[in-house]
Amino acid sequence: MAKPEGMFIGVIGGTQAGEEIYGLAAEVGREIARRGHVLVCGGLSGVMEAAARGARQEGGFTIGILPTGRRADANSYIDVAIATDMGQARNAIIANTSDALIAVGGSYGTLSEISFGLKLGKKIVSLKSWDFDASIVVVSDPAEAVKEATGE
Amino acid sequence: MAKPEGMFIGVIGGTQAGEEIYGLAAEVGREIARRGHVLVCGGLSGVMEAAARGARQEGGFTIGILPTGRRADANSYIDVAIATDMGQARNAIIANTSDALIAVGGSYGTLSEISFGLKLGKKIVSLKSWDFDASIVVVSDPAEAVKEATGE
Amino acid sequence: MAKPEGMFIGVIGGTQAGEEIYGLAAEVGREIARRGHVLVCGGLSGVMEAAARGARQEGGFTIGILPTGRRADANSYIDVAIATDMGQARNAIIANTSDALIAVGGSYGTLSEISFGLKLGKKIVSLKSWDFDASIVVVSDPAEAVKEATGE
Amino acid sequence: MAKPEGMFIGVIGGTQAGEEIYGLAAEVGREIARRGHVLVCGGLSGVMEAAARGARQEGGFTIGILPTGRRADANSYIDVAIATDMGQARNAIIANTSDALIAVGGSYGTLSEISFGLKLGKKIVSLKSWDFDASIVVVSDPAEAVKEATGE
Repeated sequence: MAKPEGMFIGVIGGTQAGEEIYGLAAEVGREIARRGHVLVCGGLSGVMEAAARGARQEGGFTIGILPTGRRADANSYIDVAIATDMGQARNAIIANTSDALIAVGGSYGTLSEISFGLKLGKKIVSLKSWDFDASIVVVSDPAEAVKEATGE
Repeated sequence: MAKPEGMFIGVIGGTQAGEEIYGLAAEVGREIARRGHVLVCGGLSGVMEAAARGARQEGGFTIGILPTGRRADANSYIDVAIATDMGQARNAIIANTSDALIAVGGSYGTLSEISFGLKLGKKIVSLKSWDFDASIVVVSDPAEAVKEATGE
Repeated sequence: MAKPEGMFIGVIGGTQAGEEIYGLAAEVGREIARRGHVLVCGGLSGVMEAAARGARQEGGFTIGILPTGRRADANSYIDVAIATDMGQARNAIIANTSDALIAVGGSYGTLSEISFGLKLGKKIVSLKSWDFDASIVVVSDPAEAVKEATGE
Repeated sequence: MAKPEGMFIGVIGGTQAGEEIYGLAAEVGREIARRGHVLVCGGLSGVMEAAARGARQEGGFTIGILPTGRRADANSYIDVAIATDMGQARNAIIANTSDALIAVGGSYGTLSEISFGLKLGKKIVSLKSWDFDASIVVVSDPAEAVKEATGE
């Protein structure tokens, strides 16, 4: 089988996403795949599903790090599902495993991932998401988000 | 042995604390103990040590949930040390175990604990700490912080 | 409040316990308390409840490290409940936090705690429980179990 | 990129492996890949490296679930490294994520993974490893190990 290459880019956001946020996350996923990078996410619905679906549309590779203990809980667009059974503590694993994080919308769960990423010194990009700290790079469109995250 | 009673109040903040923050955290710890509540913290230095030391001075009970795997890593003022060996993921355990959280100073690690607390719907009180969300109760002194956290 | 003193002795076993095992675990808990040590357990029913109940009867101090995210899930005899929300991974925390482990009955969950304890080089005592390794000290009654665990 | 297909087969064992165990683990990895399945392991040296190396030789796909917080700690034959920073608690994630486990040699860490797998009701195959329970399927060669694990 062919192997995932490139950076591991985490896309984080809520399990529920309105049309605009879902569309933005999908385009972020597509852009990650187009540039040859790997998508890391929480494996569930909403922004996680949108980003994985987008990445898949462009032939990308997707990893879902689940809060539950069953790989079957992953959305349909996940290539490798990791079943942690560790609840929200899995957010720390997403931050540890990603080279950079792109937040799309999202609420307090997303904020915990941003916090862990900031603590680890990783690049954090916000697309219609949290913006309260000088270390967060705020962008206005998906292509810019991926460009900032990858530093390309 | 006598038993811990009252609420479990988490005091969160950095491992390094300047004089002012250390003093405020110690007074928060004393106030928690005076009101008969239990102090929960991360068990290490800085704000965690200050709060535990303060609670001890007033005869309070202190719990330290450590990121490392050795109880001996706890500061000298911890009554019950829990050795998780789970790194920053232990921040989720602090949020789950506390009835309310008081942040004193702190940076991104503290922010992750605030995030988990907000997600769980717990009362978050900020004393010279993060203030970026309407759900965070900002206070200016230790007595007020404990009063808000306990709802008394 | 008075403070927990002595060693942290983990008592491990199943959530369901027949009359004999329940009775043995309760007596192990009583003996731990009589000798002035602290009981660590998983906080739920069966052997965990029996040991905590026994320790309480003799005025001992009890810690329950729960797999769930709610302290209210602890049995009625727990003084300090830690809500991990980490499922069976909390078994590693029980092993890390205990100075020695006493297994009373139990099945595969208990075995995972024994494994972690053995890996950490901690004393493992088996009372009608697993016996497949030379490092496990097999005993036939509760007083002997506690004596072996504490090395007294 | 091509996608991992087939079952997720965990290969577990120690970080240090003598020549015989290393050779057996490598052949287990090769057989998993030949049959079109995915290798899951702990990502480090010894048996984990041997199995991943073997799987790679036959074009297989390899996942390493690390105890540390850095993907760079994975051995050279891992396609997807997950950085948990959760120490030995990551053994629970390996068991949750694998459809079946093959133990090759190994000691107490391996035993914890077997325990979690047994608790989850997963097929456990032992190749020169632990054999103390009727639920463990003992085999004498790598091909048989993979055949038993996959049920093919």
